[in-house]
Amino acid sequence: MVESQPDTELLQQLRELLGETGLRIQPDDVIPDVVLRPQTTEQVSAILRLCSAAGQAVVPLGGKTGLANGHIQTRGEFGLSLERMSAIEEIDASNRTMTVQAGCILQVAVEAATEQDLLLPLDFGARGSATLGGIAATNAGGNRVIRYGMAREVILGLEVVLADGTVISSLNKMLKNNTGYDIKQWFIGAEGTLGVITRLVLRLRPNPRSENTALLAVDSFDALTGLLRWLDARTAGTLSGFEVMWPEFYEYITREGSLHKPPLPHGSAFYVLVETLGSEPESDAERFETVLGQAMEEGLIADAVLAHSQSERNALWEIRDDVLEFFKLGPIIPFDVSVTLDRMEDFVADIRAGMDAVQDAICIVFGHLGDCNLHLILGAKDHGNFDHDALSTLLYETVQRHEGSVSAEHGIGITKREQLCRSRSEAELQLMMAMKKMLDPKNILNPNKIFAAETLAAG
Amino acid sequence: MVESQPDTELLQQLRELLGETGLRIQPDDVIPDVVLRPQTTEQVSAILRLCSAAGQAVVPLGGKTGLANGHIQTRGEFGLSLERMSAIEEIDASNRTMTVQAGCILQVAVEAATEQDLLLPLDFGARGSATLGGIAATNAGGNRVIRYGMAREVILGLEVVLADGTVISSLNKMLKNNTGYDIKQWFIGAEGTLGVITRLVLRLRPNPRSENTALLAVDSFDALTGLLRWLDARTAGTLSGFEVMWPEFYEYITREGSLHKPPLPHGSAFYVLVETLGSEPESDAERFETVLGQAMEEGLIADAVLAHSQSERNALWEIRDDVLEFFKLGPIIPFDVSVTLDRMEDFVADIRAGMDAVQDAICIVFGHLGDCNLHLILGAKDHGNFDHDALSTLLYETVQRHEGSVSAEHGIGITKREQLCRSRSEAELQLMMAMKKMLDPKNILNPNKIFAAETLAAG
Repeated sequence: MVESQPDTELLQQLRELLGETGLRIQPDDVIPDVVLRPQTTEQVSAILRLCSAAGQAVVPLGGKTGLANGHIQTRGEFGLSLERMSAIEEIDASNRTMTVQAGCILQVAVEAATEQDLLLPLDFGARGSATLGGIAATNAGGNRVIRYGMAREVILGLEVVLADGTVISSLNKMLKNNTGYDIKQWFIGAEGTLGVITRLVLRLRPNPRSENTALLAVDSFDALTGLLRWLDARTAGTLSGFEVMWPEFYEYITREGSLHKPPLPHGSAFYVLVETLGSEPESDAERFETVLGQAMEEGLIADAVLAHSQSERNALWEIRDDVLEFFKLGPIIPFDVSVTLDRMEDFVADIRAGMDAVQDAICIVFGHLGDCNLHLILGAKDHGNFDHDALSTLLYETVQRHEGSVSAEHGIGITKREQLCRSRSEAELQLMMAMKKMLDPKNILNPNKIFAAETLAAG
Repeated sequence: MVESQPDTELLQQLRELLGETGLRIQPDDVIPDVVLRPQTTEQVSAILRLCSAAGQAVVPLGGKTGLANGHIQTRGEFGLSLERMSAIEEIDASNRTMTVQAGCILQVAVEAATEQDLLLPLDFGARGSATLGGIAATNAGGNRVIRYGMAREVILGLEVVLADGTVISSLNKMLKNNTGYDIKQWFIGAEGTLGVITRLVLRLRPNPRSENTALLAVDSFDALTGLLRWLDARTAGTLSGFEVMWPEFYEYITREGSLHKPPLPHGSAFYVLVETLGSEPESDAERFETVLGQAMEEGLIADAVLAHSQSERNALWEIRDDVLEFFKLGPIIPFDVSVTLDRMEDFVADIRAGMDAVQDAICIVFGHLGDCNLHLILGAKDHGNFDHDALSTLLYETVQRHEGSVSAEHGIGITKREQLCRSRSEAELQLMMAMKKMLDPKNILNPNKIFAAETLAAG
């Protein structure tokens, strides 16, 4: 990006629009320079109208928890933070919907739904900071996608401001609504490059009345996929978690001296955290146990431990969630990819074979198997053996060879821009760029995210 | 539309491309004139390239079961039938996906999935004729949306041919794939106006192992919505049907002398057909009965009859499905709308009040309450009292006043084109038209559907 002085006339107009507290300007030598903090959709609209006229780039900001640098401001770009638009405007218990402003933090929304005995079924590690606007913009996934779907499936309506300031209000509350093109779908997952999301209508579900959790040891990949199918068929509609840990993950996190005691002995091929969310506490627990027992008889499970209390459940989840522990091992790169189940075993074997060439290699694999979604952590314990580009190339070339997705749930942002062509054809990319140019002809909305400005200009 | 002679040079090129059997030309005085019958995506691409160059309008044809005239060919428009592209290309049991050509008939696909003990969860009356391409193009809904979602939620990947012949292949099989814009969403529900769908990847589910069905009588609308919430919370993830019949529906279909015996006596305010699809035949039946018993104790259900065999289940569904019976009453119009639950009772009361002015009025209300989706059949027993425009105006004005949707699941087509503005804002319509113009600048793809050509030209 060309570094440039902010347009003083534009800044003056924005100051008049937003007031002193609506504008945060950092000292010259720090990035970000300018962050705009509107309080209303009308202000967002006015901001974009002014910035559009001035050709001023704008980076929409939510909780800044994205893992693909989709929220990074380059010098000269204005941040557009939704932090002062964080209200829960309505919880409609009769229609089981929630209307929120885009800056509302996920955990706040989840807790408000819980108070009404309703469930907002989005959940992932960044719940305490991620905003619902950012979640919609990145089509976030997380822990319960297998049961409730990605953010896309939870969003019934959106209000979006286009690059030229036009407000598109599609705050639909109905589950069925086939009136022309479903515009909201265009903006979900577009990472703020097509419009700024200002308001959302979310679908709420009944709050589960039972929670059943187990940690299972499994002997082979075939048994693992067999188990997934078995459980999905026998826990009709209630399977909400099938989180697989390859042994390197489980054994390191529960190693001697760590915070976590191993609930199952080391030495198995796979460890799976399984969860169902049901409606009848007593009979659900019994049924869960019966189904796992049958799977054991079928040879799908080698060993199992069931949680019998909330603290036991938490202890199991804490093992799965203690991912940050791996960041202490040495320099690493976390990856987020999808591969179909029939290719997953070969995919992981190919990655491992590639990592054999790395001295002191770190190679950790885990993920939401029911969604085809693997997270991999690759690195080296010693800085001298860490080659960022080589690891990245190994990973993404292997994804491409197995026809996987270079981004399962984290998005493209800046980080994966150069990898996008591994999962999408030239025709698809040209079509996406045509959409971007139609909706944002001056490329002011989150420029250089998903597509580099030069690529767009040349496309 | 201007009537015109087909371009003989274009016809010659198409005949060379498709062969004699690939082209069906009807006698001059019959509509449709020309139907193109490609066998491959490459042929669809070549057809659109030729038609695009010649400015020739093309109407994509599936099973022609749509209820909004989205498939109607006007003289001079070429039909593009996918009837010779009907193969099931793959059932991938390990990933639980099915890849089909767009002309594949729903029932054929459902039966093929069942043979693998898998469920393709799309189901509605036209299952024997509707094609999966048409289902995707109209984002069809139907009977089990409450559990499995609309067609949009079942479609993992699409192959689409654009107006200029470009083939967009997005045959994704993975549940999570956030690699740039989710292009397939643009075409789902676009009624063939943005591209021609040629291939689909569908998500399959485990085949349910138990089916529990009951017919319930309910005393008030409050009890009805309370019952929906109650059942949804207590049948965790398995509720697959909540089909409500207002008394005029139930009492007419089960009247003396009709084919259907009334399983419950006449005289209740509402009748509800409830279904769960579970995994444990014995304990599911017991649980279903317990939950209904509790709802009765809570005063949510006034009377109930449970189906104890497949034939009893069928008998209950046949009452709900015997909608064609109302077409014999006299001239009628079937409507398909959505209204949020908190406004639904008033909405129906307003329609009924409006129908009081009609002599010999027919006013039948039923629908998928869990999806906010009502079907209404309005008419008059005597032709002399039937005023199509007055009934249509009454219905749609009332939908608009209650902020509902003029099309829940049937789409806009030609039939509801003039009503679209009642459910969508001017800004939304302008944005949709911009999309149409970008993807189909010559307006050759299903012209005059959703938007009249004049509206597009003026917009």
